Amino acid sequence: MLTYQKNLEKYADLGVRVGVNIQKDQTLVVNAPLAAAELVRLVAKKAYEAGAKNVHVEWHDDDLTRIKFDMAPDEAFKDFPMWKAKGYEEMAENGAAFMSIVASNPDLLKGVDPERIAEANKTGGKAMGKYREYAQADKISWTVLAAPSKEWAAKVFPDANEEEQMSKLWDAIFKATRADLEDPIQAWKKHNENLSEKVDYLNNKKYKKLHYKAEGTDLTIELPDGHLWVGGGGPNERGAIFVANMPTEEVFTTPLKDGVNGTVSSTKPLSYGGNLIENFSLTFEKGKIVDYKAEEGYETLKRLIETDEGSHYLGEVALVPHDSPISNTNIIFFNTLFDENASCHLAIGNAYASCLEGGTKMSKEELEKAGANSSITHVDFMIGSAEIDIDGIMENGEEEPLFRNGNWAF
Amino acid sequence: MLTYQKNLEKYADLGVRVGVNIQKDQTLVVNAPLAAAELVRLVAKKAYEAGAKNVHVEWHDDDLTRIKFDMAPDEAFKDFPMWKAKGYEEMAENGAAFMSIVASNPDLLKGVDPERIAEANKTGGKAMGKYREYAQADKISWTVLAAPSKEWAAKVFPDANEEEQMSKLWDAIFKATRADLEDPIQAWKKHNENLSEKVDYLNNKKYKKLHYKAEGTDLTIELPDGHLWVGGGGPNERGAIFVANMPTEEVFTTPLKDGVNGTVSSTKPLSYGGNLIENFSLTFEKGKIVDYKAEEGYETLKRLIETDEGSHYLGEVALVPHDSPISNTNIIFFNTLFDENASCHLAIGNAYASCLEGGTKMSKEELEKAGANSSITHVDFMIGSAEIDIDGIMENGEEEPLFRNGNWAF
Ligand SMILES: [Zn+2]
Ligand SMILES: [Zn+2]
Ligand SMILES: [Zn+2]
Ligand SMILES: [Zn+2]
Repeated sequence: MLTYQKNLEKYADLGVRVGVNIQKDQTLVVNAPLAAAELVRLVAKKAYEAGAKNVHVEWHDDDLTRIKFDMAPDEAFKDFPMWKAKGYEEMAENGAAFMSIVASNPDLLKGVDPERIAEANKTGGKAMGKYREYAQADKISWTVLAAPSKEWAAKVFPDANEEEQMSKLWDAIFKATRADLEDPIQAWKKHNENLSEKVDYLNNKKYKKLHYKAEGTDLTIELPDGHLWVGGGGPNERGAIFVANMPTEEVFTTPLKDGVNGTVSSTKPLSYGGNLIENFSLTFEKGKIVDYKAEEGYETLKRLIETDEGSHYLGEVALVPHDSPISNTNIIFFNTLFDENASCHLAIGNAYASCLEGGTKMSKEELEKAGANSSITHVDFMIGSAEIDIDGIMENGEEEPLFRNGNWAF
Repeated sequence: MLTYQKNLEKYADLGVRVGVNIQKDQTLVVNAPLAAAELVRLVAKKAYEAGAKNVHVEWHDDDLTRIKFDMAPDEAFKDFPMWKAKGYEEMAENGAAFMSIVASNPDLLKGVDPERIAEANKTGGKAMGKYREYAQADKISWTVLAAPSKEWAAKVFPDANEEEQMSKLWDAIFKATRADLEDPIQAWKKHNENLSEKVDYLNNKKYKKLHYKAEGTDLTIELPDGHLWVGGGGPNERGAIFVANMPTEEVFTTPLKDGVNGTVSSTKPLSYGGNLIENFSLTFEKGKIVDYKAEEGYETLKRLIETDEGSHYLGEVALVPHDSPISNTNIIFFNTLFDENASCHLAIGNAYASCLEGGTKMSKEELEKAGANSSITHVDFMIGSAEIDIDGIMENGEEEPLFRNGNWAF
């Protein structure tokens, strides 16, 4: 068997056994673009082998998405098939596991009226709100994987020919997800243990604040009482351990909604809604974004921040050492799944309930009271680099180095 | 532009403007296999150009279907995503138009346990029952088109190489649907007028019975009072003229459920549920199938007939001259959409409400009382040939030739 074919099978198996950790007689729901058909078929086989009852695939197509943005009337972006949103809720209630496969062209919606994109994101975000609550409170097993599309591969490796572009991006994905190793499942066990060590260290410390310093960045982030750092695999409502992102190199928690002050600068391009935002900075006062700049994609950034009230606040603080397997590839993926796992990052928008003690059992109001932000959106953006220093500030005001020159300081 | 590309565009346009006859601000729902992606994208463009508000595509994949039949547990075939069935009903209620694109491998489910296939067909048939009522009563605009898949093309042209197989099947489809003509929309207008002439002739005659004679066939079919012959385009509830099948060469009506007697033999292979049934015959008494034989696919035929009570009866009588554009290609398509339009045929199962005077406004009970059969299935099978003779028998017992040697006798 070719190496590619072997790795692809291991990758599919990883997604099924480690990503969603499929259980006997469980339904697996797969969201995938047509470009990922080969991977999806392998995922289905691996899922049935692992005892899945049913594999339900919801396909989508980048070309059709673009055709719609180019040709449909404005009203089309105000509608969402609510029966499908209800279907997702129903499948989540019935204990299905969810796998999303991303393959998007980072420039898919370049040149499209940002108003239309914002409208579509708002409509979809609202419609899928209840399903998203299931996922973000870890009630269900869910995972995000990637598969190259031609357009994405061309963006990452512009100098290679078409065939090389695809195989280079596949190789990078296999490497980043450890699918190229002899025994990826064992490797992920070890990796999850390493992340757990960091999580335990941080949860023992109970830092009151984090202080970020780098070129263009001087930011203080307060952490709420009862915040929890999490990373690697975690249990769903029924106790099955799943890994929500493959790759994942981050440990993360929720910031105190109104406890963010200062300015932070991006260090990698952000692909959002089919457009790139590059070299941007955000300024916060009492948690709220009060000013922002962007060299590229300012309009897109603006629509993102103005999605709703909660998109003016942060919902995630994530620590990733600069010296990580993904960032060592030196590849800019133009895809958040990879770029966020090569870099310290923050997220605009909704916080994860699992990042608060008892959070997954809290009501929306209780979460808000505990300091967790709520929004229909959640978008990570990268702020890490080889230069960033981060201090942890204790309850008593004492400071200690957490990151130095982009890497863990302990 | 290449001829293929030009014909494909005309074909997409035909499906949109003549098939579903899309109206301004209407939603178009497309059911399509991944293999038809190129056609689907063109259909979407043509639909938006014609004023559609939204094009909603539900994709499916033959490979995944086969993987499921091979690997999923039995219980998987008893479940249907009811939220999706509800979604179809909702879209139908809201006036969407529906296009199905078929591309299936006629041998897709060869070797699969027929019990599983029957279970899956029953589950799907029941779940989609309400949506099917919308379609079969012509409340909505709907159409069925085809696109080649590699496997289907290989079955039809086994001696050509892979590339030739696809282009030969495309050419045959373009020819059969008149998409290769200079002005296909005008050609369909003419064609619909021709079918209307036959329809008017038959509706004036009000035959009491039809009598079929050919080798292996001696069958009498009684027609109910108030039966209506239909063919070509017809209006939906809102008055928009649509064409439910492309191609369509048939004029058809509903038989009287318990008025069928004698034996009929198939003249072409029938592809049903991913399996072929070949050289089969059915014997009827008072409408019911009381005996049947098949040289190939007996088990598949058995499961079809035993789907429910109504699948023991006929739901359609269709007349197609042997000398028709499709049958003149001398190609066996192994696909009912084409083969039924090259041959007189009957259908096992549900009758079309539109084939009875006032039928589309009748309740299920009223339809049954009027003599129309009801079933969760509707499967056409081919009985026409260059030898078949059909007589029309009037109320007063007088007989007159309707078909001689496979062609219209008037
Ligand atoms: Zn993150
Ligand atoms: Zn995040
Ligand atoms: Zn027919
Ligand atoms: Zn039919």
